[in-house]
Amino acid sequence: MTATITAFERSPDRGKGLARDMRVRWALEEVGQPYEVRLLSFAAMKQPGHRALQPFGQIPTYEEGDLSLFESGAIVLHIAERHAGLLPGDANARARAISWMFAALTTLEPPIFERDMVRILDREKPWYEERLSALDETIRKRLSDLARHLGAAAWLDGAFSAGDLLMVTVLRRLQGSDLLEERPTLAAYVARAEARPAYRRAFAAQLADFTASSAG
Amino acid sequence: MTATITAFERSPDRGKGLARDMRVRWALEEVGQPYEVRLLSFAAMKQPGHRALQPFGQIPTYEEGDLSLFESGAIVLHIAERHAGLLPGDANARARAISWMFAALTTLEPPIFERDMVRILDREKPWYEERLSALDETIRKRLSDLARHLGAAAWLDGAFSAGDLLMVTVLRRLQGSDLLEERPTLAAYVARAEARPAYRRAFAAQLADFTASSAG
Repeated sequence: MTATITAFERSPDRGKGLARDMRVRWALEEVGQPYEVRLLSFAAMKQPGHRALQPFGQIPTYEEGDLSLFESGAIVLHIAERHAGLLPGDANARARAISWMFAALTTLEPPIFERDMVRILDREKPWYEERLSALDETIRKRLSDLARHLGAAAWLDGAFSAGDLLMVTVLRRLQGSDLLEERPTLAAYVARAEARPAYRRAFAAQLADFTASSAG
Repeated sequence: MTATITAFERSPDRGKGLARDMRVRWALEEVGQPYEVRLLSFAAMKQPGHRALQPFGQIPTYEEGDLSLFESGAIVLHIAERHAGLLPGDANARARAISWMFAALTTLEPPIFERDMVRILDREKPWYEERLSALDETIRKRLSDLARHLGAAAWLDGAFSAGDLLMVTVLRRLQGSDLLEERPTLAAYVARAEARPAYRRAFAAQLADFTASSAG
């Protein structure tokens, strides 16, 4: 049964693939599963119809037969558990890959996402410079720890996993900033992931949806 | 094999049970598994020995034979997958409970944790009130969505699950604030969880560790 996911009708990043549906598209491409996309306006996301699937009025959601899920991390985990390619077979290695999934979304993403929000929404606020540099300091610590862990390895723990997939989607928000570019280990890690055929297909698909809806 | 977890030697919350080891203790109590605790000073957490287990120098970690995990969400999920009591048997209901685990840690926790940090670190800043009220507005939206979803139900999706466990540990940071107390639905939800015998045992254990290390 083909799954249906939801995504922004007009991606706020103008096709850069930073919205969280990108994670789900990429995961589905890695495991070779087709999917359909339902694009939603910001107004539609807040309506009761969508809130029945996503209580917080966000994207993405995932529908497959009777099953309806929300939260990109949970959706990626669901896909990874049901199809080969995103989690190791060994039980301990699998649990460690899931540690990296949570690390990406709860230890790395909050300050990195917040930095984007501050740069967009708080530029005129009295706390802007101070807040941005405090966030950058937090992010630098986290990135140093991550780069030290990664070292000369290609991926976070053995083969490419759902942990790498989520981590790279988080780090991509820093592309073009010194925070990422001053760490060749991490910049190369992101580039290595972006070179995967599944990533390229997912990126092209979200860009095509953005381009089509912008032209409409 | 008895698992060993790590926790703060001196809990910054002075025994309120807000540190993230509380989630793991509670999960272990719910499934009836014994555990040992290794208490760490802030200095020890940043040393290479601990960083080999936890690349970001945080607590908790979880060691069980050859397996070593980090990230409280991943540890709770690992416990929930291996022992009955924290995830439904039905595959779809199980995937939905995992959606709630991610919602707790990625949608609710970031602004709620940040609010605590602002209240501790930024109280003397000229922009303190403005920043706090911006955060409170974000948190209120999330809590309204959560309360609307919960409605008259006891738990987020059927029986008590690891999703409720994580959500309650996040909401507990708001106890005593209007944000939580003005929403009887959510205040009652937290109280219902805190009345569980497993919660009480976990709370007592972390408090005993705090009291013992404070007396030392």
